[in-house]
Amino acid sequence: MNEINNIIEALRKFRDERDWAQFHNPKDLALALSIEASELLELFLWKAADEADADKIKEELADVFAYAFMLADKYDLDVAKIMQDKLAKNNLKYPVTKAKGSAKKYNEL
Amino acid sequence: MNEINNIIEALRKFRDERDWAQFHNPKDLALALSIEASELLELFLWKAADEADADKIKEELADVFAYAFMLADKYDLDVAKIMQDKLAKNNLKYPVTKAKGSAKKYNEL
Amino acid sequence: MNEINNIIEALRKFRDERDWAQFHNPKDLALALSIEASELLELFLWKAADEADADKIKEELADVFAYAFMLADKYDLDVAKIMQDKLAKNNLKYPVTKAKGSAKKYNEL
Amino acid sequence: MNEINNIIEALRKFRDERDWAQFHNPKDLALALSIEASELLELFLWKAADEADADKIKEELADVFAYAFMLADKYDLDVAKIMQDKLAKNNLKYPVTKAKGSAKKYNEL
Repeated sequence: MNEINNIIEALRKFRDERDWAQFHNPKDLALALSIEASELLELFLWKAADEADADKIKEELADVFAYAFMLADKYDLDVAKIMQDKLAKNNLKYPVTKAKGSAKKYNEL
Repeated sequence: MNEINNIIEALRKFRDERDWAQFHNPKDLALALSIEASELLELFLWKAADEADADKIKEELADVFAYAFMLADKYDLDVAKIMQDKLAKNNLKYPVTKAKGSAKKYNEL
Repeated sequence: MNEINNIIEALRKFRDERDWAQFHNPKDLALALSIEASELLELFLWKAADEADADKIKEELADVFAYAFMLADKYDLDVAKIMQDKLAKNNLKYPVTKAKGSAKKYNEL
Repeated sequence: MNEINNIIEALRKFRDERDWAQFHNPKDLALALSIEASELLELFLWKAADEADADKIKEELADVFAYAFMLADKYDLDVAKIMQDKLAKNNLKYPVTKAKGSAKKYNEL
């Protein structure tokens, strides 16, 4: 079994021991993911870009990953595979010659 | 090299070919992660919990993972390790005997 | 002075008594607004659509309005006016004949 | 009728002409508010604090206000009143003597 499957397996076990699958419909998982991403963001509020507390980032980022992995599991997505596909797509949307050194969105390049 | 490191390595290569590291300060990465999580959430808006388009979820979830992995890289975090630590912590916050079948937050259990 | 200006005036006074204008750049105000909207959303997590606590909604919605009004003030926007303009635009994007009874986005109608 | 009631009345009329009340349960309104706040935030992504496009901010902020006012209406909240109550509470949480010139949260002051 690979590394990501091991993580997902541990998350499933934690969930099932608590009988939480009943709450984990896709919509609420997406809500939870968005809420955790916002808690991570709050660590940077009113601060310079590098002033957030690294220990707290570790905690909030783990929460983000937990819901992201559970959503991947819910939709039977292979995380390594969807990342490869996304990079292949973004390679076309953001060709190096046009995108180099620019923070513009692909539709403004 | 393991599975997650391979993903992060591919993300780094994509970023560096475009000279984008200059934009990827931690605060803006956290903003991007939160924005992508919100785009994923939008797929469920005005819909029942299981009515979102699975193909679009694949796309938006890949974007979420991209920024989550880049933040992990930025703070030198081992994703498998922070997930283990989080589950160990949550095991104490949500003991099976108290949390089973309940969707309450740990501080309301 | 009108009703909304009175609210904005009270928010400004609160801010200036604490010398907080130095933190209130537009980007961090937008972060704060997004974070408060997410805290409001959290009141609905794992719940049916009408099960959120109304007292807590009052609190979180007030926080959302606080940052929304401060952003309006920062950009010198007349809230009543931008709402009128938005409704006029949406009237064209969502004509009654096409949009009636449909939750689709304008570009899918 | 006062200024805010006029705005809410116009929003209700727009909604009812399109028979959209059926979709506007509180949970989806909170989702929509959070999504719009995130679209506003995106205008600042990869940018310095004052580089966002003011015209786009006007548009996104109007969307934020639309859902915030509709949630206030849904819970029968008087916006001017909840703002007054919030400021009174925050006055206790953030006393001028402690909070002046500090961006810390009340529980860290």
